[in-house]
Amino acid sequence: MLTDLYELTMAAGYYHERMHERRAIFHLFYRRPPFGGHCALAAGLPLAMDLIENFRFSADDVQYLGRLKSDDGSPLFREPFLNYLQRMKFTGHVDAVPEGEIVLPQEPLLRIEGPLLQLQLLETALLTVMNFSTLIATKAARIKAAAGDDPVLEFGLRRAQGIDGGLTASRSAYLGGCDATSNVWAGRYYDIPVRGTHAHSWVMVFPDELTAFEAYAEVLPANCIFLVDTYDTLEGTRNAITVGRELRTRGYEMSGIRLDSGDLTTLSIQARQLLDEAGFPDASIVASDSLDEYAIRDLKAAGARINVWGIGTRLATAYDQPALGGVYKLAAVQNEAGVWESRVKGSERAAKSSQPGKLAVRRFYQNDRPVASQLYNVLEGTPSPGLVDTAGVHQTLSGESRELLLPIYRDGSPVYRAPDLPGTRARALKNWQEWTALDWSGFHYGLAPELLAEKEALLRH
Amino acid sequence: MLTDLYELTMAAGYYHERMHERRAIFHLFYRRPPFGGHCALAAGLPLAMDLIENFRFSADDVQYLGRLKSDDGSPLFREPFLNYLQRMKFTGHVDAVPEGEIVLPQEPLLRIEGPLLQLQLLETALLTVMNFSTLIATKAARIKAAAGDDPVLEFGLRRAQGIDGGLTASRSAYLGGCDATSNVWAGRYYDIPVRGTHAHSWVMVFPDELTAFEAYAEVLPANCIFLVDTYDTLEGTRNAITVGRELRTRGYEMSGIRLDSGDLTTLSIQARQLLDEAGFPDASIVASDSLDEYAIRDLKAAGARINVWGIGTRLATAYDQPALGGVYKLAAVQNEAGVWESRVKGSERAAKSSQPGKLAVRRFYQNDRPVASQLYNVLEGTPSPGLVDTAGVHQTLSGESRELLLPIYRDGSPVYRAPDLPGTRARALKNWQEWTALDWSGFHYGLAPELLAEKEALLRH
Repeated sequence: MLTDLYELTMAAGYYHERMHERRAIFHLFYRRPPFGGHCALAAGLPLAMDLIENFRFSADDVQYLGRLKSDDGSPLFREPFLNYLQRMKFTGHVDAVPEGEIVLPQEPLLRIEGPLLQLQLLETALLTVMNFSTLIATKAARIKAAAGDDPVLEFGLRRAQGIDGGLTASRSAYLGGCDATSNVWAGRYYDIPVRGTHAHSWVMVFPDELTAFEAYAEVLPANCIFLVDTYDTLEGTRNAITVGRELRTRGYEMSGIRLDSGDLTTLSIQARQLLDEAGFPDASIVASDSLDEYAIRDLKAAGARINVWGIGTRLATAYDQPALGGVYKLAAVQNEAGVWESRVKGSERAAKSSQPGKLAVRRFYQNDRPVASQLYNVLEGTPSPGLVDTAGVHQTLSGESRELLLPIYRDGSPVYRAPDLPGTRARALKNWQEWTALDWSGFHYGLAPELLAEKEALLRH
Repeated sequence: MLTDLYELTMAAGYYHERMHERRAIFHLFYRRPPFGGHCALAAGLPLAMDLIENFRFSADDVQYLGRLKSDDGSPLFREPFLNYLQRMKFTGHVDAVPEGEIVLPQEPLLRIEGPLLQLQLLETALLTVMNFSTLIATKAARIKAAAGDDPVLEFGLRRAQGIDGGLTASRSAYLGGCDATSNVWAGRYYDIPVRGTHAHSWVMVFPDELTAFEAYAEVLPANCIFLVDTYDTLEGTRNAITVGRELRTRGYEMSGIRLDSGDLTTLSIQARQLLDEAGFPDASIVASDSLDEYAIRDLKAAGARINVWGIGTRLATAYDQPALGGVYKLAAVQNEAGVWESRVKGSERAAKSSQPGKLAVRRFYQNDRPVASQLYNVLEGTPSPGLVDTAGVHQTLSGESRELLLPIYRDGSPVYRAPDLPGTRARALKNWQEWTALDWSGFHYGLAPELLAEKEALLRH
């Protein structure tokens, strides 16, 4: 039921036109790299697999659909179609880019092949989870890259777009490179490290800040990052130091302090000096307050002495670009004789057109470094080793190549098991570092010459 | 478990300090009106009530928490606290602004009073649902206001932030004034009208557009809004007209066409002319393509002949401001003797400070029009009829007044039943129209003089 109504009206149309079992191919891809970058970090595949596993209509669902009316008051859906829906399950193939890999514009994050009706009904839900997961993983990768070796903590749940907006965001943020989340549910559900100490309210409940820090240290001596800006940041730092000394007499070490407002550069430098002079050179300075990759870079450039970054709203909602804009486009359909026919959507803007066929991606490497990425049509066999790049220039390809998409489902059964999240995260960090260090002027991506020729022929037609 | 870890560490702290049953008061409010407007449309209260009803920790949850470690490897939480968690349920009071009412900056959307530990644990989840619901309802109200009497359809699920990001967005969008959603799950779950016909893929599956339209009309004759831009918008409009005529011979009327790309002003004018000349003056022209309130206003100003608006990404993610930024601040706590003590958070920026006490809002009306909104502290009794407005000027209040917050929970039991969604929507539309027509220079809001005096005394102290 996680679908747009028009997927169901189209499905009804296919059914009554007896086209519902016709095999088709759709690709899920994005057109413009998010956040003004070059590429995106693929994420969301296990969530898409969950959706496919749960792809069915219950008796209650079908009853609801049976009550929907057309504009003239007649039932929108007829009995035979509704009965068909209730019996249906996914029987197609899926190929996709594993999580943590780099994906370029126009390259399929996911390719799905199977009965037209099923593929149409899956469109909306697949887009929702793949779009959002990939968006947040990419944002997290950018933030982690700005933070360098410093830990990044994701704090976004309270400003997230809905409850599982927060859950999915925490998962994707960790996958993209964050070190931990504040979100306890995500911690439990996805086995992500969780972090957190206290808020302003803790300090405000007590008569004064020193008493508040002492009380916290009393109860949780091994988990002390004191939030020092409730009243005055440097006075707060001095109170933290006082309590840090008391902790030492008990055999514990204060973990650090957190700054959440004010001029973070100046305050962090001053707080660092206070901590160092008091004999706490290892105490962390955590910062939070509307941070993102740009703020981190500016703070580092200004000499801020922050070494742990707490990132909330701007990560969990991808504040500067809160949607990826991925699409799901028909690229081939079998005719009545079972022969594949390619389809392409024209558009006044070339960037808004789609590619025809059953697409795959070959990545080319030289000395283990990516040098090119070729989009080609599997139905036409192995392509020649060349491509027409985004500037329209023909490039000859050489070097080792490997296929980017992996088989995920065959005939409705899963044939892929996603690696664990920490493994995916490690791979994502490595990939992001490698790709963001690329000399993009020497890297080429685009369509295999055969694919371009086919597309042009289809558009002329 | 839908909480940040620091809420739990603070809760453990309160527990072991024997402060967990101390009564406290928190307010949930926003500081800056979203989208550069004056106010927000309250939404999310029934979702918050659902959270409160389900506020408990299962044995599994507690086991998970028992496995969490501090930095030094010791258990983060101790047994007595975890046992307490497992027995706990909400026992406090809630007062809140009903959905569909207008809320100004600093005014509590929700006030909660009860044992400190419970209130701390509820913070994150309450913020998540109230922040996001209010954000999207406000965005929808702005879009509906721009569309005037034209229907607005919400199409955002595929770009939403997670699956229930889409569900919550569809609910809030309807509440804020949208006429229907494409989201079938939201339709079923919240009983919202659903709308939709077909996508580009329907057209592309067939050998040509006319055949595709004919096939759709064959199966769903009373649900025909033809998407005409797959190949060429005006040619598509002519094909729609051809099929519209065939429909008439069968006793059906084409509902309209949809434009999804290109110059919507010119195309809608040309398509309108074609439809009118062909005898289809009542056929709607639906437009979609990255629309929001600004685009709608520009299109209307340019003379576009669009009369139904399909709004996706920019509504479902509140694209231009994807988070409300609401906060949840401690404002009072009882001391050991059970006497209320007010609390206020200072800040270098006055706008970031909070208000002390147990806050309520009195709205003043003259001739049924709102003229002022006064924030006051219930603990100090009825305030004098004046306020200090946002510019710091003292204003004397007169006219009828009414309380904005209603009782929602008393001693842990719900005492409020939310009106149905269509009723709330109607009220929201009326309120938004009334408030956006206000002469804001003649409307005053701010703190009762007694509240301001108390706040200043606390800040001095």
